Amino acid sequence: MPCPVARTLDVVGEWWTLMIVRDAFRGARRFEEFRSVGIADNILSNRLRKLVEQGVFERRKYSDHPERFEYVLTEKGRDLLSVVAALASWGKKWTVGRDITGMRHEVCGEPLRLQIYCDKCERTVDASEIRVPRAIRSELSAAS
Amino acid sequence: MPCPVARTLDVVGEWWTLMIVRDAFRGARRFEEFRSVGIADNILSNRLRKLVEQGVFERRKYSDHPERFEYVLTEKGRDLLSVVAALASWGKKWTVGRDITGMRHEVCGEPLRLQIYCDKCERTVDASEIRVPRAIRSELSAAS
Repeated sequence: MPCPVARTLDVVGEWWTLMIVRDAFRGARRFEEFRSVGIADNILSNRLRKLVEQGVFERRKYSDHPERFEYVLTEKGRDLLSVVAALASWGKKWTVGRDITGMRHEVCGEPLRLQIYCDKCERTVDASEIRVPRAIRSELSAAS
Repeated sequence: MPCPVARTLDVVGEWWTLMIVRDAFRGARRFEEFRSVGIADNILSNRLRKLVEQGVFERRKYSDHPERFEYVLTEKGRDLLSVVAALASWGKKWTVGRDITGMRHEVCGEPLRLQIYCDKCERTVDASEIRVPRAIRSELSAAS
């Protein structure tokens, strides 16, 4: 697939998967903690196994008798914070409800915001200044 | 649902939906242009209808005979750029393949990057400085 969005969705493009990752950021590590999103046990073990295979989680043993494992985000997994943050930020603006997920700045305790940043101009950039290259028709047909 | 991530996924948390939004950013407006992602026609019309109902797209007539409509992102829809950008950015870093989606800065033409920004400190913040409040167990169970 010639598109990094499609490739990312291939890894995490599934409702439950992103909810599992969200709960990992909120401190969930053990099977029963992830279970709390309301997912069926068989789907949960399937998703966790896939996420371990894809290197998003690392599976670590935390008990020998009985043998028990916990699931810890890898660097690759922690990098999904901006995806979860982008979802949270859109949801806060465009849907109605409480917010249980706010990320905060460790240093000052204030809520954080996603911004689009230009390295060359060394400043944050407004949506109106962003250009997404237009696909030509043949590209659109090959885009998936 | 007490979580803006869950509420956002309720609107766009589906592989095809985010691919449709991605193609809208690349210039797709008409049914046949969205079709190019490889989606079946019945699923595409269903998704477009849902996205119009949710205010992500506006449906505009562009021809009377025959009657034809195009789908244009609303402000709410354009605000999904940061979600698509976060997916693209993770995909560029962690998956292998070409990149057909780069957003650029209109002013200088350079690629843009997502950054997490602290309004109080007036600077971009590194992942290591971010704190996601830990859920208590009862919260985790109510989290979906």
